[in-house]
Amino acid sequence: MTQNIYDDPQFYKGYSQLRRSVEGLDGAPEWPALRALLPDLRGLSVVDLGCGYGWFCRWAQEQGAGRVLGLDVSEKMLAQAKATTSAAGIIYERADLESFDLPEASFDVAYSSLALHYIKDVGAFVAKVHSALKPGGRLVFSTEHPIYMAPSHPGWSIEGDGRETWPLDGYLREGPRTTDWFAPGVVKHHRTIGTTLNSLIRVGFTITHVEEWRPTDEQISANPHWAKELDRPMFLLVAAQRP
Amino acid sequence: MTQNIYDDPQFYKGYSQLRRSVEGLDGAPEWPALRALLPDLRGLSVVDLGCGYGWFCRWAQEQGAGRVLGLDVSEKMLAQAKATTSAAGIIYERADLESFDLPEASFDVAYSSLALHYIKDVGAFVAKVHSALKPGGRLVFSTEHPIYMAPSHPGWSIEGDGRETWPLDGYLREGPRTTDWFAPGVVKHHRTIGTTLNSLIRVGFTITHVEEWRPTDEQISANPHWAKELDRPMFLLVAAQRP
Repeated sequence: MTQNIYDDPQFYKGYSQLRRSVEGLDGAPEWPALRALLPDLRGLSVVDLGCGYGWFCRWAQEQGAGRVLGLDVSEKMLAQAKATTSAAGIIYERADLESFDLPEASFDVAYSSLALHYIKDVGAFVAKVHSALKPGGRLVFSTEHPIYMAPSHPGWSIEGDGRETWPLDGYLREGPRTTDWFAPGVVKHHRTIGTTLNSLIRVGFTITHVEEWRPTDEQISANPHWAKELDRPMFLLVAAQRP
Repeated sequence: MTQNIYDDPQFYKGYSQLRRSVEGLDGAPEWPALRALLPDLRGLSVVDLGCGYGWFCRWAQEQGAGRVLGLDVSEKMLAQAKATTSAAGIIYERADLESFDLPEASFDVAYSSLALHYIKDVGAFVAKVHSALKPGGRLVFSTEHPIYMAPSHPGWSIEGDGRETWPLDGYLREGPRTTDWFAPGVVKHHRTIGTTLNSLIRVGFTITHVEEWRPTDEQISANPHWAKELDRPMFLLVAAQRP
């Protein structure tokens, strides 16, 4: 099963104070780019894999989605979701993304925000998502970018001339990466972009968009320190379709 | 037009001494992975975009390809190709990959090894390749990996604890990169993996394989210093199909 770090009290306390936790979708700088990959949700059945506080589920319901299922492994997050983002048509269920089950050909859209990097067996995950989608259905997800995740020491280095660089190493050594993020020992699973895309292709998906997210010029104007994000990508966004 | 650095005498002298120049395909460590993406060439018409010395053209002809066209902008390389890798069924022609023309729907396979990073307008390039392929035809190419090309100072950095890292910066700043490689002022065009793949998708290709090349365990056993290549990818290999 995935490491359920979100139920660690120390982790949860830190995570719950992030802008994206407090403000929801609009607090996530990559949300506009991810939203642009989604179809019009009116009347569609939607599953959110790793729904967290349920911000996306509520948004999908507000867009007119016909049925919304939010899955998450964290009891704390589901409790918060049920308390704050519930609405008619939304169901929240506890599920481990390494071992969940969904009925076949039952969803039009599968969405997943920043959950894939917690999953060890990406092949099994995307096979289940493919099977749960109706023909023509779409998968849209974000994940931590492998450039961001790979390094043995993932933090800026200062070169002799004062420039900050991202000290990449081990990019082609796939496997777990353990970092301290709000709590010690957070485990994520590093794999190349190629591995992720080939996993999708292998189970039958057609890749329709691949985006290594960068802040827009408008976002950088509003938050000048985000210009640093142009040096290495933090998020990978992918859209794929079941033919 | 692309910078024709291969006709620079200083560049050509250095390049011609590379293992891949002297030994041909078997001198290129990524060749087995690239070859694995190709269909059986028997009876197929093949175009090699940036054919260099013609090693691939001759190999394709030996595999039984029905017709092989090799295009390159370098007069020196084409002269060498005509002198050393000519065979019945192979045609070598001079062409700039920014402005070449090919007849429509006339090739089964388009191949390109380490040429794409010299091309500024990747969208126009892949549109022409798509149009030149027959329905069902395949494009297989390698390009310098954007992680390798992006940095302002593309060479290993030594961290305080002695580790070597790849000092990534500017990954999301697409555009020209000028380095000194055999000759001063070699211009390559950096773009993200996402930009390359979306260019293919936009003109109608289906992505069938994406590989961030790494040496195999056998290659590392035979050349232990290649283990360093696991720290950052040097080559990106892609296969796509015109539906």
